[in-house]
Amino acid sequence: MQVGLLGHGVVGSGVRRIIDGMSNNKTACLCIKRILVKDEIEMVEERMTRNIDDIILDRDIQLVVECMGGKEPAHTFVKRALENGKNVVTSNKKMLASYGDELFALAHQKGVKLLYEASVGGGIPWMAELRRIRRIDEIESFEGIFNGTTNYILSRMEAEGCEFHEMLAQAQSLGYAERDPSDDIDGYDVAYKTALTCLAAFDCFVDPQDIPVSGIRNITKKDMNYANEHGFSIKLLGKGRKKDGILQCSVMPCFVPKGGTFASVPLNYNAISSVSETLGRAVFTGQGAGSLPTAHAVVQDMLDIATGADIADHSITPCCVDESAEVTCYIRGGSIPFPYVAETVDEDTVITVPLSYAKLKELTDNTRGVMVIEVKK
Amino acid sequence: MQVGLLGHGVVGSGVRRIIDGMSNNKTACLCIKRILVKDEIEMVEERMTRNIDDIILDRDIQLVVECMGGKEPAHTFVKRALENGKNVVTSNKKMLASYGDELFALAHQKGVKLLYEASVGGGIPWMAELRRIRRIDEIESFEGIFNGTTNYILSRMEAEGCEFHEMLAQAQSLGYAERDPSDDIDGYDVAYKTALTCLAAFDCFVDPQDIPVSGIRNITKKDMNYANEHGFSIKLLGKGRKKDGILQCSVMPCFVPKGGTFASVPLNYNAISSVSETLGRAVFTGQGAGSLPTAHAVVQDMLDIATGADIADHSITPCCVDESAEVTCYIRGGSIPFPYVAETVDEDTVITVPLSYAKLKELTDNTRGVMVIEVKK
Repeated sequence: MQVGLLGHGVVGSGVRRIIDGMSNNKTACLCIKRILVKDEIEMVEERMTRNIDDIILDRDIQLVVECMGGKEPAHTFVKRALENGKNVVTSNKKMLASYGDELFALAHQKGVKLLYEASVGGGIPWMAELRRIRRIDEIESFEGIFNGTTNYILSRMEAEGCEFHEMLAQAQSLGYAERDPSDDIDGYDVAYKTALTCLAAFDCFVDPQDIPVSGIRNITKKDMNYANEHGFSIKLLGKGRKKDGILQCSVMPCFVPKGGTFASVPLNYNAISSVSETLGRAVFTGQGAGSLPTAHAVVQDMLDIATGADIADHSITPCCVDESAEVTCYIRGGSIPFPYVAETVDEDTVITVPLSYAKLKELTDNTRGVMVIEVKK
Repeated sequence: MQVGLLGHGVVGSGVRRIIDGMSNNKTACLCIKRILVKDEIEMVEERMTRNIDDIILDRDIQLVVECMGGKEPAHTFVKRALENGKNVVTSNKKMLASYGDELFALAHQKGVKLLYEASVGGGIPWMAELRRIRRIDEIESFEGIFNGTTNYILSRMEAEGCEFHEMLAQAQSLGYAERDPSDDIDGYDVAYKTALTCLAAFDCFVDPQDIPVSGIRNITKKDMNYANEHGFSIKLLGKGRKKDGILQCSVMPCFVPKGGTFASVPLNYNAISSVSETLGRAVFTGQGAGSLPTAHAVVQDMLDIATGADIADHSITPCCVDESAEVTCYIRGGSIPFPYVAETVDEDTVITVPLSYAKLKELTDNTRGVMVIEVKK
């Protein structure tokens, strides 16, 4: 199958290396015909182009692989590829979580596949596993460490007893965190991945902006010590649950028991679990990012398309998060107005209260400096 | 697809419940036509029979599912099913690890499938994942906690500071350990699973009797304390590695770092990891036994056959374990003759020495009361 590859950065170049036969010839059924690059300076091979039409209008190309990142022009290019009857594989969580409703409907209408394994959990075969489990079970719930940057920062804060800003700076110097780290540390990256997992697990399209999100920016040694004294680690978890048509999902730091599955997930790894009727709890751990593990996931999708794997085409329903669901929260710092708590919670006061998703969203949207951590009931 | 089910015990009855539509209709492409039971008293449905010919000679039955356990008559029945051109799914590690070379050759010759997901790792989709990874990578190595009984005993010994025999008795009273626990605690169960993983990962057929095996029967509080003082837990691991045609594999208790992936695997769960070139390290955790998780794995294989999933048919090579490979071992107790160590190692002496697989095998075969634990270099 002839392939058009969009983007030749960290993931795209990994895909090229694997398909070109890095160390074996296993993916011989796939051939990259053209590669879309951004700048003149990247044009080092004849098959590289800066004109998207060289891919979209090429009738030999049946599969477009998008590894550009960012909403635009990735969204427009993917849309045009689908409109032209091409299958699409994407690693772009932000684009797909934002335009999934439009793009999946288009793929369905054109009778082509739109796969996105690499967009969530890097090398973890998360989408494939959800598809496989769903051949037998309904997925009841999922939760996981979906972001390596925040896991790195939280793990090191816990191990070394230092403050957030020190560890962020270290993560940035090691290339584990972006120069503008907001998407990671404020939880938006996990919100995209949580939304895409709701799609794959429950056939629900959730707008990531509707998910209650609380990041780790305001976490301090004090919070870490509190966790430690009570036998917990702190991890940023994305979660989802669907029951009787009602969807609950959130992105929040959570207290997880030391010695449990999530507490021991090392540094920049991801770990994701699902619960379903007959399989029970299953946990998948792997590298959440990195050129080759993520490219591996992209190539798995490409092989599924090239070999005509039997992938069920679920119809997708737009879905709202149930805002009345309550979670028990540890709250510290910031000036928190009534009605959340009766009085101001300062740096030195910790309170534990039940909050609805709606109130949690209001609280984190409107209050600076507050740290909110979920306490498991 | 019409199915003949052999055995209606813990796993077989779980398979029947799922296929009969426990709570949904997802497996409607599968229909259990006949069920082979052992005793008259089990004959509670019309489709049940005690005559294997009612299944083997029924031309409508294209798939035989063997959940009987034990070597015979399971081996004879599976062989006859394959000879009669039927696909086979089995959950029987002992039978398959013993007769795999004969049965896979027969399946290949007859052009039918022989799948065995449930035989290793219970509900963990281990075989499916190895198949999937191998579409792109060669598997370099694997290791894992393949046995829930020993993991339960070791976890509880560590948590409660009690002796082996106390915890074995508790595991037996809870139904986690058999009345004759030898297969589990002496490592044979893990040897079967390690042999089957070598088959799935490396296309090597290893006789389980050729694998160096060291169990946990002689473990004491003293060993646990030693591990604890050095920052380790003790876990019984099955391992395999193939490089340049040379196969290393073993079943041994190992010191694993506290806070690492394996140390935190809870009670009767399994956790298995693989390492491969582009995916790196991937870890899969789930229920290693139990009626429904294991039945789930059986039904996944059944669906792969019913839907004609693209499963590569690898040719299998008989393979010997490289007995010259050395592991560093902690040794305590028993009367250990020269040339392993210069003098007798008693209850109170711990030595750490490098041992070849060959010497390790001799040592554990010929020496009573000795405890051998692998120390990671």
